[in-house]
Amino acid sequence: MRRKQLVLSVLTALLPFIANAQSTGGKSDFDLMYLIALGSIAALVFAWYLTKQINKKSSGTERMKEISGYIQEGAMAYLRQQYKVVGIFFIALFLLLGFIAWVLPFITGEKWLSEFVPVAFITGGFFSGLAGYVGMRVATKANARTAMASSESLNSGLRVAFDSGTVMGMTVVGLGLLDLALWYLLLRYVFVVPIGEIPPIMITFGMGASSMALFARLGGGIFTKAADVGADLVGKIEAGIPEDDPRNPATIADNVGDNVGDVAGMGADLYESYVGSIVATMALGAVGAIASGYEELAFRYIELPGMIAVVAVLASIFGTFLVKADDNATQKTLLRALRAGIYTATAIISIASFFIVWWLVGMEKIGLWGSMMVGLIAGNVIGYFTEYYTSDNYKPTQNLASTAQTGPATVIIGGIALGMKSTAIPVLTIVIATLGAYFFAGGGLFGLYGIGLAAVGMLSTLGITLATDAYGPVADNAGGIAEMSKMDPQVRKRTDALDALGNTTAATGKGFAIGSAALTALALLAEYGNKIIETLKLDTLNISQWKEAFASAESSGYDSFLVQIDNLWHLSVNLLDPLVLIGLFIGAGLPFLFTAMSMGAVGRAAQAMVEEVRRQFREFPGILLGKDKPDYARCVEISTRGAQREMITPSILAVVAPVVVGILFGPAAVIALLAGALTSGFVLAIMMANSGGAWDNAKKYVESGKFGGKGSDAHKAAIVGDTVGDPFKDTSGPSINILIKLMSMVSIVFVGTTIGLNKLLIALIQSIFG
Amino acid sequence: MRRKQLVLSVLTALLPFIANAQSTGGKSDFDLMYLIALGSIAALVFAWYLTKQINKKSSGTERMKEISGYIQEGAMAYLRQQYKVVGIFFIALFLLLGFIAWVLPFITGEKWLSEFVPVAFITGGFFSGLAGYVGMRVATKANARTAMASSESLNSGLRVAFDSGTVMGMTVVGLGLLDLALWYLLLRYVFVVPIGEIPPIMITFGMGASSMALFARLGGGIFTKAADVGADLVGKIEAGIPEDDPRNPATIADNVGDNVGDVAGMGADLYESYVGSIVATMALGAVGAIASGYEELAFRYIELPGMIAVVAVLASIFGTFLVKADDNATQKTLLRALRAGIYTATAIISIASFFIVWWLVGMEKIGLWGSMMVGLIAGNVIGYFTEYYTSDNYKPTQNLASTAQTGPATVIIGGIALGMKSTAIPVLTIVIATLGAYFFAGGGLFGLYGIGLAAVGMLSTLGITLATDAYGPVADNAGGIAEMSKMDPQVRKRTDALDALGNTTAATGKGFAIGSAALTALALLAEYGNKIIETLKLDTLNISQWKEAFASAESSGYDSFLVQIDNLWHLSVNLLDPLVLIGLFIGAGLPFLFTAMSMGAVGRAAQAMVEEVRRQFREFPGILLGKDKPDYARCVEISTRGAQREMITPSILAVVAPVVVGILFGPAAVIALLAGALTSGFVLAIMMANSGGAWDNAKKYVESGKFGGKGSDAHKAAIVGDTVGDPFKDTSGPSINILIKLMSMVSIVFVGTTIGLNKLLIALIQSIFG
Repeated sequence: MRRKQLVLSVLTALLPFIANAQSTGGKSDFDLMYLIALGSIAALVFAWYLTKQINKKSSGTERMKEISGYIQEGAMAYLRQQYKVVGIFFIALFLLLGFIAWVLPFITGEKWLSEFVPVAFITGGFFSGLAGYVGMRVATKANARTAMASSESLNSGLRVAFDSGTVMGMTVVGLGLLDLALWYLLLRYVFVVPIGEIPPIMITFGMGASSMALFARLGGGIFTKAADVGADLVGKIEAGIPEDDPRNPATIADNVGDNVGDVAGMGADLYESYVGSIVATMALGAVGAIASGYEELAFRYIELPGMIAVVAVLASIFGTFLVKADDNATQKTLLRALRAGIYTATAIISIASFFIVWWLVGMEKIGLWGSMMVGLIAGNVIGYFTEYYTSDNYKPTQNLASTAQTGPATVIIGGIALGMKSTAIPVLTIVIATLGAYFFAGGGLFGLYGIGLAAVGMLSTLGITLATDAYGPVADNAGGIAEMSKMDPQVRKRTDALDALGNTTAATGKGFAIGSAALTALALLAEYGNKIIETLKLDTLNISQWKEAFASAESSGYDSFLVQIDNLWHLSVNLLDPLVLIGLFIGAGLPFLFTAMSMGAVGRAAQAMVEEVRRQFREFPGILLGKDKPDYARCVEISTRGAQREMITPSILAVVAPVVVGILFGPAAVIALLAGALTSGFVLAIMMANSGGAWDNAKKYVESGKFGGKGSDAHKAAIVGDTVGDPFKDTSGPSINILIKLMSMVSIVFVGTTIGLNKLLIALIQSIFG
Repeated sequence: MRRKQLVLSVLTALLPFIANAQSTGGKSDFDLMYLIALGSIAALVFAWYLTKQINKKSSGTERMKEISGYIQEGAMAYLRQQYKVVGIFFIALFLLLGFIAWVLPFITGEKWLSEFVPVAFITGGFFSGLAGYVGMRVATKANARTAMASSESLNSGLRVAFDSGTVMGMTVVGLGLLDLALWYLLLRYVFVVPIGEIPPIMITFGMGASSMALFARLGGGIFTKAADVGADLVGKIEAGIPEDDPRNPATIADNVGDNVGDVAGMGADLYESYVGSIVATMALGAVGAIASGYEELAFRYIELPGMIAVVAVLASIFGTFLVKADDNATQKTLLRALRAGIYTATAIISIASFFIVWWLVGMEKIGLWGSMMVGLIAGNVIGYFTEYYTSDNYKPTQNLASTAQTGPATVIIGGIALGMKSTAIPVLTIVIATLGAYFFAGGGLFGLYGIGLAAVGMLSTLGITLATDAYGPVADNAGGIAEMSKMDPQVRKRTDALDALGNTTAATGKGFAIGSAALTALALLAEYGNKIIETLKLDTLNISQWKEAFASAESSGYDSFLVQIDNLWHLSVNLLDPLVLIGLFIGAGLPFLFTAMSMGAVGRAAQAMVEEVRRQFREFPGILLGKDKPDYARCVEISTRGAQREMITPSILAVVAPVVVGILFGPAAVIALLAGALTSGFVLAIMMANSGGAWDNAKKYVESGKFGGKGSDAHKAAIVGDTVGDPFKDTSGPSINILIKLMSMVSIVFVGTTIGLNKLLIALIQSIFG
C-alpha cells in the first residue's frame, strides 16, 4: 500500500510539470497521436519503396518464372480460400457483437458493450489480414529474384531476401500503428469519447487481429506441415527422389507452405502481438492515471507506448541500412551484418525512449523507462537462450544429435527433455522482468502499466527483427526454385547458407514472440481485472482510503459498504477459493487440448496429402519418369482444404472457453482460467518451439558429417526427430501464444455480457433451490 | 458468505446430537482410533497369512530357483543401496528439522516448528520404506511360484500373483493406518497435545512418506527403464537375441527393474498418496470444526476419514476372496473376476460409509458422505477414460497403431496428441468433483474438508485396486523366469495373458493415483492456507463478523484492525498481484523442469547400461554362444548407481523450490507456486501416463498381427513409440504426482520458518533502501 502512496506523492510532485506539458499536448494543441500516424506512414512508404526496388530485379529464366508463378498462384489460391472461411467467422462474430452492442440495449434497457466494438473488431481482422497479404505477395515475388541474385553473390541474394523481409516487418508495424492512431483520433475528436474509454474499445481491435492471427497461424501451420510431411514421406522416402524435385506433386505445395505458414502466418501473429501489447498498455496507462485522480494526464500515458513504438520504427529503418556486406562475404560476416542492424536499432531505441519518457511524463516517472528497458533486455536474454538451446553451435543440440546414434527413440526422449529443460530460464526471466517492470514503474496500477511497457519494449525492435525472421522462407523458396529450374549448384549452396542464417535469427525471433506474449497476456489480465472492477462498480482502496470509507460508512449503518467489501473479497480472486482453483485447472488444461487438436490436424492433413501423392504416382507413372507433369494445384487444394477444415474447432475453443467459464463460474474463475492458460501455455509453447528447433538443427548437424553424416542410421533417426519437431515448432507452439492472448481479449470484450449472464444464472439457481 | 452461515446453523441444529455423540466418543470412552488401529492390524495379519500361503507353493526347478535367486539378490542389492542414499538424505533433513524445532527456540526465543516434527518425519519415511520392502520381498518370492502355478492353469497362476499383489496392497494400507493411529493416540494421550495441533504434526509424517516415495519412484523408475532400454537396445536390436534371453547380461537387471520400479516404487508412491490424503483431510476436519467454534467435535472429523479407510480395508479383504475362476478360465473371465472383487468392495464401502458418516457426525452433515462418494465416482470415471485412451480395445489406441504404418515420426506425433487430448476429461472430472465435494460438504472450511474426503473416497479401495495393480510385475517376472528356464511355451503364454490383464487394471490404477493426487494436493493447499492464517494470526471473517469487528474497532481508532484487513487482503492470494503471478509461473514451470531431469536421467543411465552390455559381449564372446555366464550383478550395479546418482537433484529441487520462493516472495507466492505446479503438473502427468500407455498397447496391437504384425515396418515404428513411452509412463509421469504433494507438504511443514525468514528479508531490504 505504501507503493500507492509513493505514486500519489510522486504524481503530486509532478503537477507543475504536468500543467506545463499539458498546455503543449492538450486538445487544442498538436496531438502526439498525429506524430504516431505520421511515423506509421513513414514505415509504409519505406515498405512501398523497397517493394519497387525488389520488382526491378530480374526474376530469371522462363523456367524460374514458371515455377515462381506456380508458387504465387498456389499461395493466392490458399489465401483466397482462407479469407473466405475466416470471412464467415468474422461476419458471424460481427453480427453477434452487433446484436449485443446495438440491439440488446433496446430490449433490456442496459448497455452491454461499447457501440464501437463490432466495427473495431472487423478493422483489426482486416488490417491483420492485409499485413499478411502484403508480406506474402512480396515474398512470392522475391523468391525467384533472390535465386537470381544469389547467382551473383551471397550478399546480393541476402539483400533481396532481406528487403522482402523488411517489407513484411515495416508493413506489420506500419499498419499496426496506423490503425491504432486512426482509431484513437477518430474516437477522440470525431466521436468525442471520454479518454478513459478509448483504449478498451481499441482492445476489440486487438481481438480482431488476434482472431485473424490464430486462423493464419493454425491454417498456415497445418498447410505447411501437411505439405512438408507429405512431400517428404512419399517423395523422398517412398519414391526416393530428392527434395524440391519437380517430379514430386507436393513440391509446389511445400513451397507454398513456406509462404502461407512462415510469412503470412507469422506476419499476422506478430501483427497481433505488436498491436496487442500496445493497446493493452494504453488501457492500463489510462486506468492508472484516472484511478490516481489525474484524468487530464491519461492521454500522456496512452501516447507513451505509441511514441516508443514510432521511434523504434525509425530506428529499425535506420538499422536495415546497416545490413550489407562485401560480395565475397562469408556466412559469419552476414550474421554479423544482421546483428549490427538489430543492435544499432536497439541502442537507438534505448537512448531515444529515455528522452521520450522524460518529455512525456517527466523525470519523476523515469522509472517507466526502466520498465521498458527491462522488457527489451528480457527479450534478448530469452532470445539468446533460445539460440543456445536450439543452435548446433552449442552443447545441448550437439548432445541431442549424438543421441541419434542409439536410434529414433533416444532422439525423441532427448529432444523432449531438452525442450522441457529449456523452459527454466525463460520462466525465470519473465518472473524477474515482471517484478522489475512492476517495481520500476512504482507498483500498484502503474506497476501493471510498467509490465505492459516491458512488452512494448520487447517488441519495439519488431520492424527489423521481423525482417531477419521473414527473409528465411524467401531464401528457402529461392533454393527450391534453383533446384527445380536446375540452376548452378553454387546458387543452391548460397540459398542454403541464407536459409541456415535465417534459422539462427528465427530462433531469437521466436524467443521474442513467446516472451512478449507472456508479458502482453499479463497486461491483458490486469486490464481484465480493471474491467471487472469497473463493471461491478468497485473501487480498490488503500489503507488511508479504507479509513475514510469506514468513517463515512459509520453514518449509513455499514450495510452498503459491507456489500462492497464482500464483493471486493470475491474479486480478489483468492487462490484458495474452489471456483478459482477450477478455473486454474481448466486454464492449465486448455493449451494441451488445443495442442492436441492442432497436432492431430497436421497428422490428418498430411495423411490426405500422402494419399494424393501416392495416387498421382500410381495413376500417372509418367510423372516419376519426368514425362508427365504432376498436378501441383490439386496438392495445394488438398492441403488448403485440410487446413481450413481443421482450424475451425480449435479457434472456436479459444473464443468459447472463457465466455462459458465466465457464465458458469463468474469472473474470478475467468481470471484464473487466463492465468492458468498463460502459465502452462507459456511453458508448453517454449518447450515445443525449442524441442522442434533443436531437432531441426540436430539433423543439420548430423548432415554436416557428424556421427556418420547423411544416409547413416543416425541421420535417419535425426530425421524422425525433425519430422516430429515440425508441427511442434511451426504449428502448435506458436499457436499457443495466440491462444493465450486471444482468450484474454475475448474475456475483456465480453466482460459485461459474461458477468450479466452469470448473475442471471445465479439468480436462476437461487430461485430454483430457494 | 451465506454458506458459512448455513454451516453455522446446521452445526447449531446438530448440538443436541453432538452432545450425545460426544458422551460415547469422548476421551473417557472408547476412542475410535483404537478401532482404526485394530483394522490396520487386521490388514497386516491378512497380508502375513497370504505370505505364508505363497511360501508354501513350489518354487519349481533348480534352474527356476537359481534365476529367481538372481532377481531377488539384485533387488535386495538395489534396495540396500537405495536405503543407504535415502538414509543420508533423511538424516540430513532430520538434523535440519531438529535444529529448527529443538535448538532454534533457545536462540531466538520463538517457536519455529512443533517439537514432534523431526521424529514424525523419520517414521513416515521408515514406514513407507517398510511397505516397499515387504511388497518387493513377497513379489520376488512369488515370481517363480507364479510361473510354476501357471504350468497348472491360468487361474492358479493368477491366484499366486494376485495374492502377492494383495500382500502389497494390505501392507500399504495396514502400515499407513497403523502409523496414523499410533501417532494420534500417542500425541493425544501420552503427550496430551491439543486436538487441533495433532493433524498438522501428522502431515510431517506424510512429508516423510512423500520424500521416500519420490526417491522410490524416481530411483526405481530410472533403474527399471535404464535396464529395460539397455537390454532391448543391445540385446534385441544389436545382438538379435530374444527378450528375456539368459545370454543377455542386462536381462536380470530388467527383471529386477520390474520389482524395484513397479512394485517397491509404486508401493511407496501409493502409500504416500493414501497417508497424505487421510492426514490432509484430518487436518482440514480439525480446522473446520474448531473455526466453527465446536472444538469438542474436532476429533469426530479427524476420525471420519480414518473410519472410512478402515471399513474400506475390511471390504477390500472381502473383495479379494471373489477374485477366482475355474481352472479353464479365459482372460475375459479373469478380468470379470478381478472386477467382481473391486466392484463388490466399492459397493460395500459406499453403503457402509453412509452409516459411518451418519453415526459420527449425524444426518445433518450427511453431505460429507456425498463428498466422499463424489471422489469414489470421479476415480472410476478417470480410471475408465484412462483405459479408454490407452487400451487397444478402443479406437484411440487402434488409430495410433495405424499411424505406425507411416513410420516412427507419425507414431510419436499421434501419441503425444493422444496424450494431450486425453487430459480434457480428467480435468473436467476433477473440476466437477472439486465443486461437488465442496458444496456437498456445505462450502467454506467444511467444503475444503469435503474435498479431502473426496480424495479419501477415491483411494478407499486401494487395498484391492493396488492388488490388481501390483500383481502385473510378478506375472511379468514369472514370464521371464519361464523363458530363461526353458519351461513349456504354454506357461509363457499364460503369464503373458496375466501380464496383459495387469496392464488393463494398471491403467485404471494410474487414473486413481493421478486423480487422488490432485484432490489431495488441493486439500493440502487448503491446509497450507490455514497454516498461514494461523501463523500470521489472522482470522477469516464473514459479514456479520466484519460488522462486530468494525464495531469493536471503532473505539480503538481502527489502526490494528486496518493492519488486519491489509494482511487479509494480502493473504487472499490475489491472482492480479505480481508476486502471486510469478509464483504461478514458477509453479507451472517446475513439473517441466523436473520431468526434463528425470527423462534425462533415464537416458544417461540407459546409455551406461548399453555400454556395459556391449563391453561384456565384446570382452567375453562366449556369452553370446551360451558358453560364458554373463555378469548379471555388474549390470544391476550399474543401473543402481545410475539411478541413485540421478535421483538426487530432482528430489532436492522439490524440497528447496517452495522454501526458497517462500523466503524470497512470501507465502502468497508459495500458494501460487503450489497451485501452478498442481494444475500444470496434473495435466502433464496425465498426458505422459496416457501417451506412454497408448504407445505400449499400440505396439502390442501391431504385434497381435495388425498392420503387418511382428517384424513389419509398422512394428518397428511402434517399438520406437513404446520405448519413448517407457520413461513417460513409468518414471516421469508418476513422479510428478509425488512432486506436487511433496512440495505442498514441505510448504506446510516449513511455513513458520519460511514466513519468519521472509519477514527478516523484507526488514533487511527496507533497512537498506530506507
